[in-house]
Amino acid sequence: MYKYGGIQFVKPARRAVVIGGGFIGLETAENLVHLGFEVTLVEMLDQVLAPLDREFARLVEEHLKKHGVRMALGDGVAGFSQLEGGALEVKTQSGRIYPADLVILALGVRPDTALAKAAGLEIGEGGICVDDQMRTSDPDIFAVGDAIEVKDFVTGQWSLIALAGPANRQGRIAADVIAGRESRFRGTQGTSIIGLFSGAAAWTGASEKTLKRIGDTDFEKIYLFPNSHAGYYPGAKMLALKVLFRKSDGRLLGAQALGEDGPAVDKRISALAVALQMGATIYDLEEAELCYAPQFGSAKDAVNFAGMVAADVLRGDMPLAHWADVQDGFLLDVRQPVELVVESVPGAVNIPLGQLRTRLAELPRDREILVICRSAQRAYYATRILLQNGFKARNISGGMLSRALSLA
Amino acid sequence: MYKYGGIQFVKPARRAVVIGGGFIGLETAENLVHLGFEVTLVEMLDQVLAPLDREFARLVEEHLKKHGVRMALGDGVAGFSQLEGGALEVKTQSGRIYPADLVILALGVRPDTALAKAAGLEIGEGGICVDDQMRTSDPDIFAVGDAIEVKDFVTGQWSLIALAGPANRQGRIAADVIAGRESRFRGTQGTSIIGLFSGAAAWTGASEKTLKRIGDTDFEKIYLFPNSHAGYYPGAKMLALKVLFRKSDGRLLGAQALGEDGPAVDKRISALAVALQMGATIYDLEEAELCYAPQFGSAKDAVNFAGMVAADVLRGDMPLAHWADVQDGFLLDVRQPVELVVESVPGAVNIPLGQLRTRLAELPRDREILVICRSAQRAYYATRILLQNGFKARNISGGMLSRALSLA
Repeated sequence: MYKYGGIQFVKPARRAVVIGGGFIGLETAENLVHLGFEVTLVEMLDQVLAPLDREFARLVEEHLKKHGVRMALGDGVAGFSQLEGGALEVKTQSGRIYPADLVILALGVRPDTALAKAAGLEIGEGGICVDDQMRTSDPDIFAVGDAIEVKDFVTGQWSLIALAGPANRQGRIAADVIAGRESRFRGTQGTSIIGLFSGAAAWTGASEKTLKRIGDTDFEKIYLFPNSHAGYYPGAKMLALKVLFRKSDGRLLGAQALGEDGPAVDKRISALAVALQMGATIYDLEEAELCYAPQFGSAKDAVNFAGMVAADVLRGDMPLAHWADVQDGFLLDVRQPVELVVESVPGAVNIPLGQLRTRLAELPRDREILVICRSAQRAYYATRILLQNGFKARNISGGMLSRALSLA
Repeated sequence: MYKYGGIQFVKPARRAVVIGGGFIGLETAENLVHLGFEVTLVEMLDQVLAPLDREFARLVEEHLKKHGVRMALGDGVAGFSQLEGGALEVKTQSGRIYPADLVILALGVRPDTALAKAAGLEIGEGGICVDDQMRTSDPDIFAVGDAIEVKDFVTGQWSLIALAGPANRQGRIAADVIAGRESRFRGTQGTSIIGLFSGAAAWTGASEKTLKRIGDTDFEKIYLFPNSHAGYYPGAKMLALKVLFRKSDGRLLGAQALGEDGPAVDKRISALAVALQMGATIYDLEEAELCYAPQFGSAKDAVNFAGMVAADVLRGDMPLAHWADVQDGFLLDVRQPVELVVESVPGAVNIPLGQLRTRLAELPRDREILVICRSAQRAYYATRILLQNGFKARNISGGMLSRALSLA
């Protein structure tokens, strides 16, 4: 719909198919929506933004759908054909056909190692191998940027992570070394952000799926949904935050965040990225002193909350459960009955938090009680009450809000 | 000017006098401007926002003036009188009179220690003395919040720093200790932010004047003026950033920032606050991996720039000078002649950077050359050229942009 001088022109719908659910694909899809296109995003994987854990990618996908992007996940492109009149059809491996006036290929990057191979350089899983001084297997040849394999700062694994910031540092390090200095690359945390319809998704460090892939089991995760800034100040929006940390020593391993307030996401993941770089623990996050004024944060910032929630787990104050664990436990929902109308968990017993102390006799002493509320805050109080009264209880991290993620 | 149904009502100007140039005074002044008041801000000190170094406070004051706030600094209130018709007059110690329809007192906070004194508790320079477990001089009495003196995390000095975040942590620590746990308060960094007409000023850690007051001389400072995000992406705005660090080991001591993009200021000072908490050096800042997408930052973020500029100084690659040093040196301005029309330094010799290598013979070898450009970036290249050609040269930190601060 275009307006000009009071007269409205209705243009025929234009259809775009964007192939690839990475940074470029998503940014292109958003901008085509702004231009009035009907946009379909085709991605071979079953999620967008591959570095994100799947449940957080689901949040991104729902956010994109809300803004009009149609998602075709888990489906690769099989071919294209051109119709009479010039329009295109995109055929996918599953046999679906997406008509399009415009097709964008945003399939990601892969190092072009032809020259490196011709020079006899060692190539790893697709990228040029370098040491921490950017030297290739030929000591007279240096390589930097998206063509090389970099060491993951958290896991120590070598992988292809194409990011401008680390590439820039690598260039400086190579120059230093060539000039006779002892600079070394400490690896990359993979810190990233993508703007999405004025919101953003961002992450730093290891994801849960990366830790699982390398067989690391010494970690715990928490989900929390704090406000972008003080709730009493206009414009506060919920952040979704996932933080991964070492069970054995509390060291921060990684974090993912998203929300409709882009700069608020940026602030938290940038602060957590520095914490991760410096080897911070979740106990350090409890004490972090980020900028606070009501329009910028909270006296207890989202980063502090993350530290407190995680420290409660490691100090044993708040045994934690995740939705994947619920099959064995007795489910106790401490929300108000009116909230159950929105969404409730089959089989869960409802005792609102305010009645819990007087209704303890209704609860089993021989089973573990898994406590649910909306965001896990009331469930925190309920779990404390239960533990102090001799029950076995755990708080389900992120409550109904994280359940929505696990089901999506 | 008010509009209603196409008819304009012109209201008589309303005059407000805000007394006090701290957070509350400045926030009130801004909001009264938004309401259409003519606002005068009266402050007894010669700067607003006392924790800021004076030259950065000047930037805030200029920003406020640009948005219509009249500044009356270095002048205390002597009295008030009421005129016929109800209007007020504010008389100041210098004898000036400010007519006002509204006067706001925003004079700051001071602990009310009457109860603590009556209880025989030790009082320091105005606040209740506590140990790092929030215990007063009576071990059965705990105190937290704005009534206590807190230890400055950087300097180790005890002082009154009224901030919500640390107060919140102190409450948790007192509760922990009372419950038998070993929690301890690590002190406060004084991290603060204030929104100012959609911009912001923020700081963390020690200021230059605090370091000077306690006689600390093992520090250096840098000024830089990077973009809030990638310059090629619309909406980038300049940040003013001052970073203080230990000369002996590069440890970050404090930072101050301001700019017209409030969240961009918040992001950098929050990230630097975490760096400071974790004992980061400026070498760590060089390698910081903050969120980067063009609308959120740069591949070389402002925080990286700060680390690189500071590390260049400590590694000896870039001898630094400040405007206070210029009396002794030979001043070389490497900007384009057209830029000198905007503002130039009396006595400085102008050789544009692009001509420098061919005009070295014009420069003295027996004097130290202090190099100037707009932001110190071209002066960096010029200083390198001079050093490599055997001259003695230093780069004036922040260039003409920081000169504007030093003169204001």
